[in-house]
Amino acid sequence: MGKSPSKETATLLVSCPDQQGLVAKIANFIYSNGGNIIHADHHTDLEAGLFLSRIEWQLEGFNLPKDLIDAAFGAIALPLKATWQLHFSENIPRLAIWVSKQDHCLYDLLWRIKAKELKAEVGLIISNHQDLAPVAQQFDIPYHYIPITKENKTEQEAKEIEILKKAHIDLVILAKYMQVLSPQFIQQIPNIINIHHSFLPAFVGAKPYHQAYSRGVKIIGATGHYVTQDLDAGPIIEQDVVRISHRDTVPDLIRKGKDLEKIVLSRAVRLHLQQRVLVYGNKTVVFG
Amino acid sequence: MGKSPSKETATLLVSCPDQQGLVAKIANFIYSNGGNIIHADHHTDLEAGLFLSRIEWQLEGFNLPKDLIDAAFGAIALPLKATWQLHFSENIPRLAIWVSKQDHCLYDLLWRIKAKELKAEVGLIISNHQDLAPVAQQFDIPYHYIPITKENKTEQEAKEIEILKKAHIDLVILAKYMQVLSPQFIQQIPNIINIHHSFLPAFVGAKPYHQAYSRGVKIIGATGHYVTQDLDAGPIIEQDVVRISHRDTVPDLIRKGKDLEKIVLSRAVRLHLQQRVLVYGNKTVVFG
Amino acid sequence: MGKSPSKETATLLVSCPDQQGLVAKIANFIYSNGGNIIHADHHTDLEAGLFLSRIEWQLEGFNLPKDLIDAAFGAIALPLKATWQLHFSENIPRLAIWVSKQDHCLYDLLWRIKAKELKAEVGLIISNHQDLAPVAQQFDIPYHYIPITKENKTEQEAKEIEILKKAHIDLVILAKYMQVLSPQFIQQIPNIINIHHSFLPAFVGAKPYHQAYSRGVKIIGATGHYVTQDLDAGPIIEQDVVRISHRDTVPDLIRKGKDLEKIVLSRAVRLHLQQRVLVYGNKTVVFG
Amino acid sequence: MGKSPSKETATLLVSCPDQQGLVAKIANFIYSNGGNIIHADHHTDLEAGLFLSRIEWQLEGFNLPKDLIDAAFGAIALPLKATWQLHFSENIPRLAIWVSKQDHCLYDLLWRIKAKELKAEVGLIISNHQDLAPVAQQFDIPYHYIPITKENKTEQEAKEIEILKKAHIDLVILAKYMQVLSPQFIQQIPNIINIHHSFLPAFVGAKPYHQAYSRGVKIIGATGHYVTQDLDAGPIIEQDVVRISHRDTVPDLIRKGKDLEKIVLSRAVRLHLQQRVLVYGNKTVVFG
Repeated sequence: MGKSPSKETATLLVSCPDQQGLVAKIANFIYSNGGNIIHADHHTDLEAGLFLSRIEWQLEGFNLPKDLIDAAFGAIALPLKATWQLHFSENIPRLAIWVSKQDHCLYDLLWRIKAKELKAEVGLIISNHQDLAPVAQQFDIPYHYIPITKENKTEQEAKEIEILKKAHIDLVILAKYMQVLSPQFIQQIPNIINIHHSFLPAFVGAKPYHQAYSRGVKIIGATGHYVTQDLDAGPIIEQDVVRISHRDTVPDLIRKGKDLEKIVLSRAVRLHLQQRVLVYGNKTVVFG
Repeated sequence: MGKSPSKETATLLVSCPDQQGLVAKIANFIYSNGGNIIHADHHTDLEAGLFLSRIEWQLEGFNLPKDLIDAAFGAIALPLKATWQLHFSENIPRLAIWVSKQDHCLYDLLWRIKAKELKAEVGLIISNHQDLAPVAQQFDIPYHYIPITKENKTEQEAKEIEILKKAHIDLVILAKYMQVLSPQFIQQIPNIINIHHSFLPAFVGAKPYHQAYSRGVKIIGATGHYVTQDLDAGPIIEQDVVRISHRDTVPDLIRKGKDLEKIVLSRAVRLHLQQRVLVYGNKTVVFG
Repeated sequence: MGKSPSKETATLLVSCPDQQGLVAKIANFIYSNGGNIIHADHHTDLEAGLFLSRIEWQLEGFNLPKDLIDAAFGAIALPLKATWQLHFSENIPRLAIWVSKQDHCLYDLLWRIKAKELKAEVGLIISNHQDLAPVAQQFDIPYHYIPITKENKTEQEAKEIEILKKAHIDLVILAKYMQVLSPQFIQQIPNIINIHHSFLPAFVGAKPYHQAYSRGVKIIGATGHYVTQDLDAGPIIEQDVVRISHRDTVPDLIRKGKDLEKIVLSRAVRLHLQQRVLVYGNKTVVFG
Repeated sequence: MGKSPSKETATLLVSCPDQQGLVAKIANFIYSNGGNIIHADHHTDLEAGLFLSRIEWQLEGFNLPKDLIDAAFGAIALPLKATWQLHFSENIPRLAIWVSKQDHCLYDLLWRIKAKELKAEVGLIISNHQDLAPVAQQFDIPYHYIPITKENKTEQEAKEIEILKKAHIDLVILAKYMQVLSPQFIQQIPNIINIHHSFLPAFVGAKPYHQAYSRGVKIIGATGHYVTQDLDAGPIIEQDVVRISHRDTVPDLIRKGKDLEKIVLSRAVRLHLQQRVLVYGNKTVVFG
């Protein structure tokens, strides 16, 4: 393992059927090419018979040229029946942030990107309302106002997909976007992270804070998850909670929830951007 | 307010339609009779139009004899359309603890009662299994083995009700009792507290830890609640949570959950025994 | 107690030697003048022999004119040897936010005020650096750059006091202001809230995150407190914590700590602005 | 990686100066001998230039006999300047639990061992008081009453060391043992875990709950740590906290703290027994 974390690194996220020698084979691939591992974490899901791994190494001194690494690792992965993703730390991911009327998650994400807590570029903001255009302007980010009705949904989503592709967006963040995406959309856009304002699977669907208030719970939560075709049922990346009491009204729950939503969404996005999340089935491994 | 909390006290839990002068009227009742308030907390549910209050005062120096307090307060309560409960700290409540095979909550409660963390007497233990009879013996508490089948449920519950009444039980604690009580039973036994091993309303019903594992949540919880005829839907007294990760298997969730269950159940029981819980509708006010 | 919380209210914070009849006397004062109590919470510190109380009531229908309430309550307070503060919800407090170079707490407070989570006006920002002037400009708030050296401290503080008084500032918030205020300054400015980036009393003084890293703690915290002449030893209003691991470097602690600092500081400020904090000795009662 | 976690495993805890190829070399050692890795986690402390690792593999199918593994790994470790510990899951560690008068941690540990949450045998209990002898009797464990005074401390500790050695104790647990051990004792007994009833480094020394009450903190904690010659300054394994309020008296803090102490101590012991803790300097790596 190496000396400085600030140099360029490569990261492999690998999953394959569990078998002997996996750690050795992957580590040998790095070592024999002169690589310096700075993070290695592995998980075996014994029930699913799956091995899941994250390895990050420094590219300085690594003898394989960057554009050959993928193919070279492919030769190792093939007999292992492994799937993998390869990332380079110098590639700055491009984000699209989707919002409706609430601005707290948007401000929070923009501040974190500006403060370099999140290493990413915001390519554009999409909204079904015009309310947050001034925020986009303040941070000098293109704002696409795309209102959605039952009638125009298909064509508007087609337009959105075109915008995302033209802007080379790597990750869509639903930062309190209060619209359901169609299965067709979700199929075409692979990486979408949503913040749901409840401790899933409690209170799926609309108005979770009102539901929580009616039920009289003593703790509320928020959930950051990947979006899949099942509403509010995608793989969970991060959750957190806050205590409430009988004194808290629905507006109090909404206020306390906003702090949770900001923190949980930003943690989920950060874990994704650092390639720390591996999805399998409907679950995630989150590497420490 | 008074000097020492160790003397005998009386506690009133009051609910009534909200109106002017309630705090003054209740406080005057205590003060004009020479009482020394040591705890007073009030809550107004503006939506429900309800005033809910807890007042505790020292009986030393209080001019009304203990056996007249209830009637005297009734004269004040009548025009306010108030319902109320009156408790004296010297009345030690009698508990029945119901268990199946798991012993962790049972041991925990017995230790807390022995250590005087919970001010109560355990009148008896009821179980649908014989496994925990030795624990009862160790603490010298009567153990009633009452197996339940679909066929015998009605008659066995009748037997249980008889046992509870004969032993003057004030509170039934379902300390991991893995049987559903019939609506008839619940109707006849007013105070039943259950520990549910999930963060309700997530994962109602059977095997919540298996459900949590399958769903891939990042936090699990436990819920202490009053038992009503709707399974797992009674008024919540207390909840708490613990963080889990992809490394945690179902047995790990069960192990971590046991610590939650012990703590949440004992807190719920303690709040009840101190008359700090006021139920209204399907919710609770928990006075600090 | 009353129907709607949105109307103008008055709030009394009262402390006095403990004695019989206090709740009744205060509640009667409100009731006999036609007031509608919407919040009443009391605490007795038996060790200190002190009664501490917060009462909030609606002014609509209250028969005493606003400008006479203070004097009228004074007549009740005198024989009780009580000290009290009276606040009206329509008086919007004016804040001065003090910063150095870090912007996270400043942005957070400004966003919360804009979003009406905190009911206050920001009169001005003071800083010993020029870095955050653009933030002030963005929100159109006067920014006073007042650099501090050992030599000029006394005269610069005199200037600051003048600025605060001229702007009718009710509360000074040290939002990561990395300078120690002189005892003379603290004596003249009664309400100062500071955020300290540790779980006090652990890691007082400079560089608490470095201290925490060296000590190898598994949890870090932040503390919102009133400023007194003893550095980092003033009455604590609010604290919170977050879990860390051996993988977290000092920059990770700083990043995680920023989220804590924002939340803890904003909660402390909110509690103060709602007159929920009563200081006695070096401690606080925080009314729920 | 392998199929079932229930078979016998070996675990290596390794630390060495950081350098290239460490993961590969260790993994190859296991793989080339036919071992099946079921857990591998690594950490690099870049500041200290240290690589720290935990590897666990199944012994079934491993071609090296158990008694040769240590020497064989030594050949790899030597050129790496590595120190290491090797453990086999079938070796059940023997514990000595030390107590004074409080029984909550003792009961908790004994219950967890009986319930197989902790895989260990209790060889004996040592106490400077006679109070908890009945608990030892109840669980049929030898109880050594060894009172300590200033005068007899040296000779009593000598006696204790003899008892520990005769009983082949692997780990001493100070489960609320209210005596300071001498440096001489600590030097001779390598593995001692203590529970300190505060969130270290806040409130070192005696009566931390009284200190916390006086300081008016809003959160209290507990710390499980290895004992070193610096009182309360040893490497921290685990910490946790609980929220308190102005309503909590010192006895309330003690009561809430007991729940923390039980949980934090048992987690620290469990992590140690699973060889998940690597001490370096005054810090720990806790492998997930």
